[in-house]
Amino acid sequence: MDRALSFIEEHHQRHIGELEDFLRIPSVSTDPEFATDVNRGADWLAERLRTAGIDKAEVIKTDIHPIILAEHVTDPKKPTVVAYGHYDVQPPDPLDLWTSDPFEPTVRDGQIFARGAVDDKGQLMMIVNATEAYLKSSKELPVNLKMVFEGEEECASESMGPFLEKYKDRLTGDVALICDTSMAEPGIPAITASLRGIVYMEFFLKSSNRDLHSGLYGGAIHNPLNVLGRVIASLHDDDGRIAVAGMYDDVRDLSAAEREEMKRIPFDEAAWLETVGVRGTWTEPGYTTLEAATIRPTVDMNGVWGGYAGEGSKTIIAAEAGAKISARLVPDQTPDDIMKKLQRHIREHTPESIEVTFNPLGVGSAINVDPNHPGLKSAARALEEVFKVPPVMLRGGGSIPAAAMMRDVLGLEPLLVGFGLDTDRVHAPDEHFGLDRFRMGIESIARFFSYYGENGGA
Amino acid sequence: MDRALSFIEEHHQRHIGELEDFLRIPSVSTDPEFATDVNRGADWLAERLRTAGIDKAEVIKTDIHPIILAEHVTDPKKPTVVAYGHYDVQPPDPLDLWTSDPFEPTVRDGQIFARGAVDDKGQLMMIVNATEAYLKSSKELPVNLKMVFEGEEECASESMGPFLEKYKDRLTGDVALICDTSMAEPGIPAITASLRGIVYMEFFLKSSNRDLHSGLYGGAIHNPLNVLGRVIASLHDDDGRIAVAGMYDDVRDLSAAEREEMKRIPFDEAAWLETVGVRGTWTEPGYTTLEAATIRPTVDMNGVWGGYAGEGSKTIIAAEAGAKISARLVPDQTPDDIMKKLQRHIREHTPESIEVTFNPLGVGSAINVDPNHPGLKSAARALEEVFKVPPVMLRGGGSIPAAAMMRDVLGLEPLLVGFGLDTDRVHAPDEHFGLDRFRMGIESIARFFSYYGENGGA
Repeated sequence: MDRALSFIEEHHQRHIGELEDFLRIPSVSTDPEFATDVNRGADWLAERLRTAGIDKAEVIKTDIHPIILAEHVTDPKKPTVVAYGHYDVQPPDPLDLWTSDPFEPTVRDGQIFARGAVDDKGQLMMIVNATEAYLKSSKELPVNLKMVFEGEEECASESMGPFLEKYKDRLTGDVALICDTSMAEPGIPAITASLRGIVYMEFFLKSSNRDLHSGLYGGAIHNPLNVLGRVIASLHDDDGRIAVAGMYDDVRDLSAAEREEMKRIPFDEAAWLETVGVRGTWTEPGYTTLEAATIRPTVDMNGVWGGYAGEGSKTIIAAEAGAKISARLVPDQTPDDIMKKLQRHIREHTPESIEVTFNPLGVGSAINVDPNHPGLKSAARALEEVFKVPPVMLRGGGSIPAAAMMRDVLGLEPLLVGFGLDTDRVHAPDEHFGLDRFRMGIESIARFFSYYGENGGA
Repeated sequence: MDRALSFIEEHHQRHIGELEDFLRIPSVSTDPEFATDVNRGADWLAERLRTAGIDKAEVIKTDIHPIILAEHVTDPKKPTVVAYGHYDVQPPDPLDLWTSDPFEPTVRDGQIFARGAVDDKGQLMMIVNATEAYLKSSKELPVNLKMVFEGEEECASESMGPFLEKYKDRLTGDVALICDTSMAEPGIPAITASLRGIVYMEFFLKSSNRDLHSGLYGGAIHNPLNVLGRVIASLHDDDGRIAVAGMYDDVRDLSAAEREEMKRIPFDEAAWLETVGVRGTWTEPGYTTLEAATIRPTVDMNGVWGGYAGEGSKTIIAAEAGAKISARLVPDQTPDDIMKKLQRHIREHTPESIEVTFNPLGVGSAINVDPNHPGLKSAARALEEVFKVPPVMLRGGGSIPAAAMMRDVLGLEPLLVGFGLDTDRVHAPDEHFGLDRFRMGIESIARFFSYYGENGGA
């Protein structure tokens, strides 16, 4: 392990340069226009795995974007880590709010700015670099390692399910190592104890076969934009509870002990709001802000459109309105069930004269981590040695559909160790990642490999 | 008059050709990108007025788009008509729904298809051609004529108020002839007895200084798109009444006799809906569909936007949402008062954590026509002679802010005679105007000049 850690220190500048090369590839998975770039991202990554000395690294085609499957299995007696990451990124828009080009990485004040810097190229490369450190310095990895790096995390991981089903015999293992989450706060590492699931779709409300003059038809027919407003308003009651019938039916409440444990998570509400310029909270009654953002289900509009949005005025009643809507899920909500309930609610709140159509865009279930898994202990020890403080057990509000699939299809316990911060502007302009965290992340994973290699069988 | 009518018949093909030239100029007033074209439209029209033999035709600059002021005053004893029209047009989008280019006029089945064909270039040219017929055939017009042709009707006529104030000494007269309305139905002419006014603005709801990850913040803060929905939903009660406080305070109800009179307006509700593909009505309780669309106030969203509207999914809570909203007004609602009440309502329905800002985009008050004005009698006689049936007194749901201003600033009684049809696709793709109506409109106005010249002083 010591030789691997020295290797990491010596090669830090090269690691940064390689990360920059990776970040220059605009592998935006949600937009078909970037499909070639997503492919380029996959090829770049597979080549990087080969130069790292990993036995086998394949780029496997799917119906949408390729998945990298890599294997370095040397000793059946060692425990096996299946590492997960994603090389695709969110769209960069709005472009005009970036200080520097989202696909021309720029280092300012020790932070690297680019789309994907922390979510998830920077974190994915920590796994690659930690692995290479062993293979190049001692020729031997303390664990058997398999890697699954997908290109559809930002567009709901549709291909992951079929992929895992198809390759599940090759993806046997003991733990799923997932580096796509955050630390507790600067300097305090974390392991994520739970993540929310997601249901995402778009829907359309159509009234007429053309845009209508608002003077001639206004007052006499349902306006699709007004109806969209009424549908959106119907999703919550005035206090912030979700008003979709059956939404809370299957929600597994946290125990009093678990909620008490959550109080140890550092959370400065005022700072959390101030960083993003938000003036106040709005939460489901009976829950703290942090609980509302992590362990409770949500329904949020992610986009709305319809009618005239150009300069000045246009006096029309639009023929059609559209919206993107998503729900965050908690254990034991079932994505398919919530998708149905949301659609039924929207349909029931749309008047008969308006035609409603749905386009599902993705689902993923929530995950909870087993607090007694040996991987957790090894990871905690590694993190504490690097950061000099023990990790906090975090609750994450986001979703990593692939983590739930690895649990459900492969039977692997998810181990979520991440190095992001709330201030990293994930999914927003000026996304960035601290180069110190990048280095400490590589070192933490290297140490985890070593301790889990020793104790993983326990 | 007979010589003028013969002239009109002989020059019909030339009139069509000139209208086509006029329609080729994309004088879209709402979009600054078309400013040069709007100017071109004004210059073309002024030149056409000069070739028609009108004494004086000036292009007068304003803060936005020029206004044409023309005068042909020969005999102080004759009554004076101040004619109004507008040479600007609505934006042509969505372009892909046009059968032929919106700015390359095409005649199909006796209808001329182009943006502005009926609203209002075709109707404006009827006044010009009727005037020319007198000046070229007998050298003498039966009335004194002044013309005001503006270039901002489709963007709320902001310059008209200051213009009329500035030139009101030159714009004295007896009646304001406005050709920008519709017939009762094919073959049945109409004079419009009332028009609704309008208040138009956009507003913005801002929550954060960047788009936020919906997993990290969802459930804990107000989402501007969800809030927009709640604001929109709050504008009406469940039955279709406007729920904005004070909205109905100043509404002058029509008398029982006036409502009875309205029953004579031909209105085929099923056909009216079917033409535009709408499956049902939604009206204020206690009013017929036609009443709801013409003599009752409305509040309609004209556009909404915010968040992600591209392909696939993006899991964000948008920093900001925006919307365009307008109200149609009836006598005696005051535009400034309704603007204030709408803004107060929106502000009161926006939670404290969301910043709301407004951008007013235009106002115009409603108008009612004096049923005893001599201009009305002359116009009714002219229309009956051309169409062989007496005109119906229509109620219009749209707004012509300039008509209200001519009444308020110049003290002119508005006379609204128009030749559009509900099926002309005004403000929509494939706008068109019947060439037969174009000819009969010119003839009607020529006859009106003659009868009003004889009887206008009465």
